[in-house]
Amino acid sequence: MKKILYPGKEQWDSLTERPTLSYSDIEETVKLIFKEVQQKGNSAVKKYTSFFDGIQLEELEVSATEIEKAVNQLPEELKQAITIAKENITQFHAMQKKSKQEIETMEGVNCWIENKPIQKVGLYIPGGSAPLFSTVLMLAVPAKIAGCQEIVLCTPPDKEGNINPAILYAANLCGVTKIYKVGGIQAIAAMTFGTETIDKVYKIFGPGNQFVTVAKQVATQYNVAIDMPAGPSELLVFADNTANAEFVASDLLSQAEHGPDSQVILVTTSEKIQSSIQKEVKKQLEALPRKTIAAQAIENSKLIVVKDINEAIEFINLYAPEHFIVCSQDEEFFIDSIYNAGSVFIGNYTPESAGDYASGTNHTLPTNGYAKNYNGVNLQSFMKSITFQKISPKGIQNIGKTIEIMANAEGLDAHKNAVTLRLKSLGNEN
Amino acid sequence: MKKILYPGKEQWDSLTERPTLSYSDIEETVKLIFKEVQQKGNSAVKKYTSFFDGIQLEELEVSATEIEKAVNQLPEELKQAITIAKENITQFHAMQKKSKQEIETMEGVNCWIENKPIQKVGLYIPGGSAPLFSTVLMLAVPAKIAGCQEIVLCTPPDKEGNINPAILYAANLCGVTKIYKVGGIQAIAAMTFGTETIDKVYKIFGPGNQFVTVAKQVATQYNVAIDMPAGPSELLVFADNTANAEFVASDLLSQAEHGPDSQVILVTTSEKIQSSIQKEVKKQLEALPRKTIAAQAIENSKLIVVKDINEAIEFINLYAPEHFIVCSQDEEFFIDSIYNAGSVFIGNYTPESAGDYASGTNHTLPTNGYAKNYNGVNLQSFMKSITFQKISPKGIQNIGKTIEIMANAEGLDAHKNAVTLRLKSLGNEN
Repeated sequence: MKKILYPGKEQWDSLTERPTLSYSDIEETVKLIFKEVQQKGNSAVKKYTSFFDGIQLEELEVSATEIEKAVNQLPEELKQAITIAKENITQFHAMQKKSKQEIETMEGVNCWIENKPIQKVGLYIPGGSAPLFSTVLMLAVPAKIAGCQEIVLCTPPDKEGNINPAILYAANLCGVTKIYKVGGIQAIAAMTFGTETIDKVYKIFGPGNQFVTVAKQVATQYNVAIDMPAGPSELLVFADNTANAEFVASDLLSQAEHGPDSQVILVTTSEKIQSSIQKEVKKQLEALPRKTIAAQAIENSKLIVVKDINEAIEFINLYAPEHFIVCSQDEEFFIDSIYNAGSVFIGNYTPESAGDYASGTNHTLPTNGYAKNYNGVNLQSFMKSITFQKISPKGIQNIGKTIEIMANAEGLDAHKNAVTLRLKSLGNEN
Repeated sequence: MKKILYPGKEQWDSLTERPTLSYSDIEETVKLIFKEVQQKGNSAVKKYTSFFDGIQLEELEVSATEIEKAVNQLPEELKQAITIAKENITQFHAMQKKSKQEIETMEGVNCWIENKPIQKVGLYIPGGSAPLFSTVLMLAVPAKIAGCQEIVLCTPPDKEGNINPAILYAANLCGVTKIYKVGGIQAIAAMTFGTETIDKVYKIFGPGNQFVTVAKQVATQYNVAIDMPAGPSELLVFADNTANAEFVASDLLSQAEHGPDSQVILVTTSEKIQSSIQKEVKKQLEALPRKTIAAQAIENSKLIVVKDINEAIEFINLYAPEHFIVCSQDEEFFIDSIYNAGSVFIGNYTPESAGDYASGTNHTLPTNGYAKNYNGVNLQSFMKSITFQKISPKGIQNIGKTIEIMANAEGLDAHKNAVTLRLKSLGNEN
C-alpha cells in the first residue's frame, strides 16, 4: 500500500491516473476474426470456439433440455438468493420507467418525448473461473423491463461444451430469448454481423477481458452501439474517524480480489483511521483464498490523506471512481457534492458487495475515469427516446414567421418555403 | 427520383442502405493533427487555423467587444426569432428534468438514482456558407438547463478572423462560457487534450463535415465522449391520399437542399399521391436558389409504394430515419408503431423545418440507421445518472445472506467476507 500524505495539487493528475492499456496488437486479431465471422458465419464461430475454448460444438444454441437440467441441478439456496436479487433489481429498474412527457410550446405546437425499447440487444457474459450469473441479472432484468423484443446472450462453453448452470438458470429466469455457447471475439462478431443461427443485434452489453473489450470497440464501427468502454474495476473509499476500519478493509480487499490490476484507493482526512485500516487490510489479507491476486492489487493501492472534506471531494470528482464508498459523519456533504462516480455506497453497513449482487442497483458501471461522462447501465440504456411534434394550422400561423426568418438567415430557402407554402394555403401572405 | 413499386422483402436491405463512408484516408490526417495539438497546444491550433481557414490569429478566444458588436449588428427581427426559438427549446428541454427516484427494495435497503450534469462540455458549430446558429440553440440550451459548469464553443473563423454574428449572438444569449475561433480537426483535438487557452472537455457535441466526424471518433480513444456518430441528413415521409402533395414535396426538397448526399425517401400506399408528389417536386425544384445541390439529392431519392400501412411501418422501422414525417389518416397507428426514428413530424401542418428551428424539439438526431440504437440529443445527453444506496444494520441483516450465497457461488470470498464481518458485528453468526 502506498501511503500518501497531503499531496499537493501538482501531484493529483498522476494520482488519478489509470494503467494505460495498449490495444493495438489485439486490434489486428479482432479485425481478422470479425472479417471471417462476417464472411463465413457459423463455421467461423465454431472454428474459433474450438481454437479458444477447446471444444468442437455441433449446436451453438443452448437447448431447452440443457436449461431444464441446469434448473434441476442448482442448489435450492442459490436459486432463492438469485430470485431475491432479481426481485430487488426489478424494483429498482422498474421505478425508472418514464411515461411520455408532453408540452405545448406555443398555442397549436405540441411536442412530446417518449421512450421506446431497443428492439434487439446482445448480452455478453464472460466464462472462466468465476461464473458471473449476477451480471446476467444486471443486464437481462432491465432489458426485459424496457421491452426489448430480442434478448440474446452469449457466453463461452467449458471444455465439455457446457455452460455454468447458474448462468443458464438466471438467463432463463429473466426471460432471455436465446442463449448461445459462444465467447470472446467471435461472440461479439456474431452479434455484430449475425450468422445463420445468431441474430444480429443493435446494442451489445456486458463485461469481458481485453479481447472482448477491443471487440466491442470494433463493433461500433459496424453500426452497433455498446454499453460503455471498459477498464479494470475500481473502488475509492472515503473514511473519517467514524468509519469502521475492519469493514473498510474488507471492502478494499473485496475490490482487490477482482484482479491484480484492480484499482483500490482510500481517501481520508484522518491519519489515525488510515493507519488502522492499513493494519486491518494486512490482517484480513492473510485469510483470503484469493490472497495472491488480492495482494498484488493491494500492493499498488493508495492510501491518501488530505486536509479536509473539500479537498477530498475535489480529488474524488477528479478521479471519478466506478464504486465510491462513503463512511463519514459528513455523508450528506458527499452525497450532494459527488459529480463523478458510477455508484455510491453510504455508511458502515453498505458494502460494495451489496450493489454487486442484490441491493437493486446495477453493477455494470463506468471505470477508467469514464464516470465523468458516462453513467452505469440503467433502464434507459436499453431504450432510446423519440421526439414527436404535431402542429395545427393555428400553430404554424403562430410559429411560421420565426422559422422563415431563421431559415432565411441560414440560407436554406427550401426550409423556408416548406413553411411559406403552408402559411399561404391558410391565407397568410408575406 | 427512383420509383419503386411494391418491392419484395428481399429488396428491403438494399433499399435501406446508406452510402458507405470510407474514413481510412482521413484518419491518418486526423491522428497527425491530434498528436501535434496534444504536444504543442495553441501553436499547433494556430498553425492549422492558418492552413485550413486562411487566417493567422493572435487570440483564439472571442472577446467581449466582439460579442457586443455582434449583438448590436444583428437585425432586430432575427434577434426576436432566435429568442422565440430559444424559449420553445427551453420549455421542451426543461420539461425533461428528472428528480431523484428512490425506492426501499427491502426493509433497510434504500436505493436511489439521481442525475448530475457533465461538468465540462464542448460544442462544435461548423462554419462555411450556412452559419448554423440554430445548432447553437439546440446544444447550448440543454447544456445550460442540465447545469454543465463549463460550456465551451468552437467554430471556425472566416478569412478576416471573424465569427458570424448570429452564432455569437445565440451563444451569448444561451450562456456559453467561452467561444473560440477554432474549427475542424484542430478544434476537436483542442477540446480533447486542452491547450494553454482552451479547456479540455468531457463530452463533445455537434455536427461537422467528414473531417470533424472522424476527429470526434478519434477523440473517443482519449476518454472523451461524443453525442453520436454522424452521417448525411435524412428524411422519410409516409403519405397517403390525405397528404397534401404540395407540402410533402416542399419537405422532401428542404431535406434535399442540405447536400447532394442527403437521403430523401417517400413511402406511400397510394400510387396516386406518389405521382402527384413527384410532379410537385419537379415544379418546386425549378424555383429553388440551391437547385443544383437539391437536384442531385432528388435524383437519388426513392419513392416507394407498398401494399399497406403494416408493410410501411415494418419498412420504416428497418430504415430507421433521422426525420420521419407522417401525413396519413392512420397517424395514430404510426405514432404507436414507430420504434426507430430520431424525430417524428405529424400531419400536414408540421414541416421538418419546424423541428429544425423552433418547435422546441432538438434537431441533433441520429442518422445512418443509428435511430435503431441511439436517440437524438436531449437534456439527458448533458447529464449522467449516479446510483446511490444506503443500508441500515437492519437492512444488511435482511439482505446479507443473499449476498453471501451469491458471492460464494461466484467464488469471490472477499466479497462474501465484507458482509460476514458486518453481520457478525451485529450478532448474526453463520
